Amino acid sequence: MNNDTRREFLRTSAAMGVSLAAGASATAAEPQPSTSHQAYGYQHTPAPLPFDAKNLKGLSEKLIQSHWENNYGGAVRALNTLRGRLSAAAVDANMPPFVYTGMKREQLLRTGSVVLHELYFAGLGGNGQAGNAMRSRIAASFGSYDAWEVEFRKIAMGLAGGSGWVMLGYNEALGVLENHWMADHATAPAHTRPWLVLDMYEHAFHMDYGAAAARYIDAWFANLNWETVAARR
Amino acid sequence: MNNDTRREFLRTSAAMGVSLAAGASATAAEPQPSTSHQAYGYQHTPAPLPFDAKNLKGLSEKLIQSHWENNYGGAVRALNTLRGRLSAAAVDANMPPFVYTGMKREQLLRTGSVVLHELYFAGLGGNGQAGNAMRSRIAASFGSYDAWEVEFRKIAMGLAGGSGWVMLGYNEALGVLENHWMADHATAPAHTRPWLVLDMYEHAFHMDYGAAAARYIDAWFANLNWETVAARR
Amino acid sequence: MNNDTRREFLRTSAAMGVSLAAGASATAAEPQPSTSHQAYGYQHTPAPLPFDAKNLKGLSEKLIQSHWENNYGGAVRALNTLRGRLSAAAVDANMPPFVYTGMKREQLLRTGSVVLHELYFAGLGGNGQAGNAMRSRIAASFGSYDAWEVEFRKIAMGLAGGSGWVMLGYNEALGVLENHWMADHATAPAHTRPWLVLDMYEHAFHMDYGAAAARYIDAWFANLNWETVAARR
Amino acid sequence: MNNDTRREFLRTSAAMGVSLAAGASATAAEPQPSTSHQAYGYQHTPAPLPFDAKNLKGLSEKLIQSHWENNYGGAVRALNTLRGRLSAAAVDANMPPFVYTGMKREQLLRTGSVVLHELYFAGLGGNGQAGNAMRSRIAASFGSYDAWEVEFRKIAMGLAGGSGWVMLGYNEALGVLENHWMADHATAPAHTRPWLVLDMYEHAFHMDYGAAAARYIDAWFANLNWETVAARR
Repeated sequence: MNNDTRREFLRTSAAMGVSLAAGASATAAEPQPSTSHQAYGYQHTPAPLPFDAKNLKGLSEKLIQSHWENNYGGAVRALNTLRGRLSAAAVDANMPPFVYTGMKREQLLRTGSVVLHELYFAGLGGNGQAGNAMRSRIAASFGSYDAWEVEFRKIAMGLAGGSGWVMLGYNEALGVLENHWMADHATAPAHTRPWLVLDMYEHAFHMDYGAAAARYIDAWFANLNWETVAARR
Repeated sequence: MNNDTRREFLRTSAAMGVSLAAGASATAAEPQPSTSHQAYGYQHTPAPLPFDAKNLKGLSEKLIQSHWENNYGGAVRALNTLRGRLSAAAVDANMPPFVYTGMKREQLLRTGSVVLHELYFAGLGGNGQAGNAMRSRIAASFGSYDAWEVEFRKIAMGLAGGSGWVMLGYNEALGVLENHWMADHATAPAHTRPWLVLDMYEHAFHMDYGAAAARYIDAWFANLNWETVAARR
Repeated sequence: MNNDTRREFLRTSAAMGVSLAAGASATAAEPQPSTSHQAYGYQHTPAPLPFDAKNLKGLSEKLIQSHWENNYGGAVRALNTLRGRLSAAAVDANMPPFVYTGMKREQLLRTGSVVLHELYFAGLGGNGQAGNAMRSRIAASFGSYDAWEVEFRKIAMGLAGGSGWVMLGYNEALGVLENHWMADHATAPAHTRPWLVLDMYEHAFHMDYGAAAARYIDAWFANLNWETVAARR
Repeated sequence: MNNDTRREFLRTSAAMGVSLAAGASATAAEPQPSTSHQAYGYQHTPAPLPFDAKNLKGLSEKLIQSHWENNYGGAVRALNTLRGRLSAAAVDANMPPFVYTGMKREQLLRTGSVVLHELYFAGLGGNGQAGNAMRSRIAASFGSYDAWEVEFRKIAMGLAGGSGWVMLGYNEALGVLENHWMADHATAPAHTRPWLVLDMYEHAFHMDYGAAAARYIDAWFANLNWETVAARR
């Protein structure tokens, strides 16, 4: 078909939900990057904790285990289920766009939860001491390492009693290392490489600290594994 | 001071707003990556349109010029102002965290607007034809290039009449190329490299198309510069 | 069944999606308030414009007609479709809660759009002059009528270039008349009676004013029908 | 000044932050409804728990006390502080609209938290048994009382592991009693009278139940005071 006909066809398909996924088999033989998964077919396998949950200081094994199994694990299971649902929705001829986007929103939320939780756990298990190179790099952007920590803590305390994340991340588009406030798993700075993320959802601390968010933040800092952070530079 | 004293000091500083930015001068001599800007001090310069606004097909010069000058330009100006305000807030001893986060939310929103608009404009000015390598890469994840386009359009139509973005992006954490629904400039998939973004805020099309979002999406596809997209792989 | 058994049954039903809607027929004979509709079965009929779209000052017939037909009308159609979908989802034994809430989110968004657009159109068609009683009532809460208008306009300008609503509303829980910032149709102050709402989505003005939001706000004020506002007290 | 001059003046004031609050003194003598508070000056007094926290079934005194004191109480304190800040911002000649709206967003969030928490606590302390009139009213909208409870629980489970509220509310604009999903304190259906709200923020249950949200929902249902709900009809 010509370009106009094809465009009309695809536009109508989007509106009506006609799927073209049948074309998948035709392309199955095409080279696929070995590091990549398929958008609809991908099923994520939970990453194990990179430390022994018994060994953190001031964060109980019970808390960490529940966080990993129920909150992170729940997000993985939901995301896998959603991919299956989205795959089916793509061949549902009656799926309106505004119903489809409801599922895409939930997919985005769970995607953020999976990605951020993996970064969170990977950042724990250390002694809390940032190396000199990392401290210098942070100071170069924030004026001093301590100025960075003050802003990072302030954002965290502004989320306390609610939920969200704090991220130290390198914005690759603007070329700036900065702290970000994130209201939920689906909030994030576009085109930014995360270095360090702090989970401020209450499931990250209420079992151990109740509403005492500042004490949780202390404990989180004390367990930071700055080597994994440095590796993300 | 020892670690406990320091922690207490930083925690209190975060709560009270005492700034440590004075330390900035001490670190000014430290090496700073040449590609990076300072978190508070950075002032962004608007990127010029990478094409002649007169030459797009089906998107008027008036629309593109207003989009660039008022919406993208307005976001740049707001972001620059916010950095100055945040810098001052860091030395305001009475700044509560929940007021500070109000500004961080606005900063995140404008940061997203600046980054996404630059990607949007950089993706225009072409002939709309994706090369074979790009088509294969997309097909490898979505089953077929057309299946990708159907889902991308469906997400866009689910946002029509409201606002937001659609992104084709490579999730570097999960290793998957996928389409994302984004409710506003502050919504995004974490740790994802954008390949292609479509602005579904009504300022992107109402002047030319009124509420006829599907016709705008057609025009957007027809002007895509797939070479810049390919360069983001 | 006893209370524990019943609880277990309902909890499982919620998790699995077993519907109890079959019970509907049994209760069909029960008295139903004449002013109320059924949660799932309700289909909303669009309210006609309460003024002649040709007669507004500074807001073109084309803009108003498109706003009513495409944006308000589109929300009505989407909401009606969503109710049907939700009704079906209630009898889908395999519907996970996190997919169901995706639809509830879209329902809330369209519900807000329908309700707020009806308030918006009902507030237009007047001469823009607030009566003395209304001015006094506003002044009693804001210090002066002009102080109210300054804050209302400031919130609107903070949303310009993006989307959202500004509401003057009476918070029935706290007993205070105040202005509210609303990021989208699903953002609102709980338990608040709206008096006056301003649509800051770009579909409300871009056709006539492009990005010149302040001029749109002027036009909106000039067309306010304060008598309908007064009737909402 | 004439209308055009005045409009220009107010528009400029909104943009520049010039305050007209000085006019407040001129109107101080005007009659103010005895049931109403002033928009900027109002300072909210926390409402005491309407039951003895020792007496709930399956919700510990420690949990309820922390919820009331830290989460609800914290929201009251933040809201009161924000009103003071907003009042000052109204006389700050250099306050840009997009900084002001950051504070309005935080105000809306805390307003929702205060209002919803008061409804939540007022709904507890009962025996969990809805009276026949209430059951009939719910059945009239949902088909049956049990169908209502299934949907209400399903929405709650869709929020489990994250945060938000579930509301049974009467939409006064559309004339329909329905359940609403609410992502956070600032999400709500416009023009809706709340009958019953369930707090799904993790501070409402993690201390007692960890991630076992379904058991918390059971406990919440068992303690409902349906008489206060009936009084909201």
